[in-house]
Amino acid sequence: MLFKVEMKVNLPTDMPADIAADIKFREKAYAQRLQENGKWRHLWRVAGSYANVSIFDVADNTELQDLISNLPLFPYMDIAVAPLCRHPSSVRDDDS
Amino acid sequence: MLFKVEMKVNLPTDMPADIAADIKFREKAYAQRLQENGKWRHLWRVAGSYANVSIFDVADNTELQDLISNLPLFPYMDIAVAPLCRHPSSVRDDDS
Amino acid sequence: MLFKVEMKVNLPTDMPADIAADIKFREKAYAQRLQENGKWRHLWRVAGSYANVSIFDVADNTELQDLISNLPLFPYMDIAVAPLCRHPSSVRDDDS
Amino acid sequence: MLFKVEMKVNLPTDMPADIAADIKFREKAYAQRLQENGKWRHLWRVAGSYANVSIFDVADNTELQDLISNLPLFPYMDIAVAPLCRHPSSVRDDDS
Amino acid sequence: MLFKVEMKVNLPTDMPADIAADIKFREKAYAQRLQENGKWRHLWRVAGSYANVSIFDVADNTELQDLISNLPLFPYMDIAVAPLCRHPSSVRDDDS
Amino acid sequence: MLFKVEMKVNLPTDMPADIAADIKFREKAYAQRLQENGKWRHLWRVAGSYANVSIFDVADNTELQDLISNLPLFPYMDIAVAPLCRHPSSVRDDDS
Amino acid sequence: MLFKVEMKVNLPTDMPADIAADIKFREKAYAQRLQENGKWRHLWRVAGSYANVSIFDVADNTELQDLISNLPLFPYMDIAVAPLCRHPSSVRDDDS
Amino acid sequence: MLFKVEMKVNLPTDMPADIAADIKFREKAYAQRLQENGKWRHLWRVAGSYANVSIFDVADNTELQDLISNLPLFPYMDIAVAPLCRHPSSVRDDDS
Amino acid sequence: MLFKVEMKVNLPTDMPADIAADIKFREKAYAQRLQENGKWRHLWRVAGSYANVSIFDVADNTELQDLISNLPLFPYMDIAVAPLCRHPSSVRDDDS
Amino acid sequence: MLFKVEMKVNLPTDMPADIAADIKFREKAYAQRLQENGKWRHLWRVAGSYANVSIFDVADNTELQDLISNLPLFPYMDIAVAPLCRHPSSVRDDDS
Repeated sequence: MLFKVEMKVNLPTDMPADIAADIKFREKAYAQRLQENGKWRHLWRVAGSYANVSIFDVADNTELQDLISNLPLFPYMDIAVAPLCRHPSSVRDDDS
Repeated sequence: MLFKVEMKVNLPTDMPADIAADIKFREKAYAQRLQENGKWRHLWRVAGSYANVSIFDVADNTELQDLISNLPLFPYMDIAVAPLCRHPSSVRDDDS
Repeated sequence: MLFKVEMKVNLPTDMPADIAADIKFREKAYAQRLQENGKWRHLWRVAGSYANVSIFDVADNTELQDLISNLPLFPYMDIAVAPLCRHPSSVRDDDS
Repeated sequence: MLFKVEMKVNLPTDMPADIAADIKFREKAYAQRLQENGKWRHLWRVAGSYANVSIFDVADNTELQDLISNLPLFPYMDIAVAPLCRHPSSVRDDDS
Repeated sequence: MLFKVEMKVNLPTDMPADIAADIKFREKAYAQRLQENGKWRHLWRVAGSYANVSIFDVADNTELQDLISNLPLFPYMDIAVAPLCRHPSSVRDDDS
Repeated sequence: MLFKVEMKVNLPTDMPADIAADIKFREKAYAQRLQENGKWRHLWRVAGSYANVSIFDVADNTELQDLISNLPLFPYMDIAVAPLCRHPSSVRDDDS
Repeated sequence: MLFKVEMKVNLPTDMPADIAADIKFREKAYAQRLQENGKWRHLWRVAGSYANVSIFDVADNTELQDLISNLPLFPYMDIAVAPLCRHPSSVRDDDS
Repeated sequence: MLFKVEMKVNLPTDMPADIAADIKFREKAYAQRLQENGKWRHLWRVAGSYANVSIFDVADNTELQDLISNLPLFPYMDIAVAPLCRHPSSVRDDDS
Repeated sequence: MLFKVEMKVNLPTDMPADIAADIKFREKAYAQRLQENGKWRHLWRVAGSYANVSIFDVADNTELQDLISNLPLFPYMDIAVAPLCRHPSSVRDDDS
Repeated sequence: MLFKVEMKVNLPTDMPADIAADIKFREKAYAQRLQENGKWRHLWRVAGSYANVSIFDVADNTELQDLISNLPLFPYMDIAVAPLCRHPSSVRDDDS
């Protein structure tokens, strides 16, 4: 079941560089693990921003909440979620 | 080059049914032709709405404008566009 | 799986009374059928408005879209959807 | 008398972990006590967020204010309230 | 129990004058009847607008909905409601 | 001459408790003095918030500015003002 | 007593030209009469729009409502009002 | 050439009193100097706020930017600018 | 003197095709005439929309209002204006 | 390929002056280098603000993201991007 998830990162500008680097390092590892197991189906940067557009593929709302709330950057992001489903004009059965 | 395109359809509620049906028929054919030639890479319905989230894959801004402004539903939609690019944490080379 | 659905009705003020009455009659029957089969778990009027707050209990996003887009009042409503899940402080196992 | 209450938590990202844990511990105990005595009728997590949707069942506006303003997280939340009442299409007498 | 109710009137500019006059005549009679029986405690015009700020004194949310949804101008107004209660700094016991 | 004044309090969550208590103590005394001399005609708490809805009765805009800008909580509040006057449907001569 | 009044004109694009011309003719006469008797102290066009910024000088809120609600264009405008008073840094006694 | 300039002051609530006083002292002197040389034609307080509405009379956009960006309070203000010109209904030649 | 002007076209969807074509024909001629005489310095389509971003080069606010209010599409557009001037980091003397 | 980029600078008001000066120095050098190599085609100050309107000319979205995210002021700015293309009424072939 797919969800569009948009994340905008707002790290405090006075956060020490090593702490920021550690959070980003863990975020990247977490994001790649979820991509590899198929839960985070797409991950794109929005050009000109510190934000992304993502497509999550989860079993249900509970799994969505579990995956998002465990993001290392979760406390520092504005996050917007929209539930998706198959569009009647889609030509692909494997894209929903 | 990818763009997220969000479209919300606002057909006038007093449009005659046959005219609406004709526009939707042409919209569907147009959308499927663009999906088949790879320009309209993803097309999802936003659950609970008459709206979609789409990913377009175009050569440049000019082609994006050309494809969107020729949508049969173009005069009846609110459309929002965001340029996308590869995310540094993405594990896929073929998704940007 | 639960979703909060908020609906605000905007019937055109010049819609003939019998047409409006017919749409509302079908809307009520539809809403009651969904309540009785457990899909529309809660339905409340927002006091001072022609709007409601609802809780839907569906199998997935596809079913949510199917149920909402078939509402007789669907073309006349602003609709906002939020996916819900169990809150860690909830005392009830049967409320999510 | 029912109210929809939406709460979004904005804890300062630099709050010491033990202070945050203490506030959350007291919030959970408070929320469960109100659920058990029937004042906090429903409590759902909004998936993908640090926010909830709740239904309060109170005697009047004064009790609503009393219950909400005593939430341990009250100074750290954006809160939106909407008064609810029975919907004419509801099939349940015990849900308003 | 008090509620602040703000109403902005948006009569269609092409409504025939006699129909508009009839609605306004019935609105005025309705508003005065509710003021005289104490349900519509205050009614002020917002200077420079076709809008009002009102204070309703009702038994509960259900009565609020009943009174507002029966306003002759109800289909033509944007209405915003806020529940009120006694302020701890108020010097008046009879104003809440 | 009446004005609706809406005030939302945003005290910094890290303000020392004794300083906050002192400001609130002076605010309460100030508010009660203005109520007693008739300048602050109504003062209600918005249920579920740290906000109020007030009606001020002043000689002119200058007095309104003088009274509001001297509120001890003035630097910590979002304040919105609307000028009011007698509504043509009001039944009370003494309420404007 | 001064008020800033901002008016944006939204004439229906299908209004017959002679009716629009008549309303504008009466609006201009009305605006000039109020300027000449000192009630409409300043009237500026916002460049690039069909809107104005005005300063009214009235006895009280009631007169402001009376003057604005009698504008021939009143039913076709979005109007925003802000009460003004002397600024402590102003060098002019005659400008408030 | 006239511009409407609206300024809202947001001094940090923890700024030391003497620093705030110094900035305000310099702001007042600056504002009065510009009023006296005719660049800052009008300056009004918005009643109930720490904000002003101003009319600047400048040679061009460059001078507007020069005057505003040198305000001692510039880093602490939200500022909105609108270009003005003579209104066709204005009766005054010297007010644009 | 430069202004950024953003225009979004909202032609009524039920406007007869020949009337729309005539307005667009005159708009294009008007826009090209202003470009050729240097008043309309830049004109870009916003990709994915029926909107443009423009840079006007005018003598003053009055000329800006004159040029914009005479656009054949003026009654059908949302228009936003921002005054521009030379940026201190610009390397070009001829771009302001 | 052109993009409109709008940047609003929000430097913390308590940033030490030498650090701010260093960031601005590097920002200016960076901006001038990009202007000289043709990537940053236009750069204008918005009069009355600490903001700019820019036109970037890039190969694709990836280059746009690369250029913007390396701005020394990037962590301190609100940035909005819009893709541009040739307008059908433009008279210039070299402006898109």
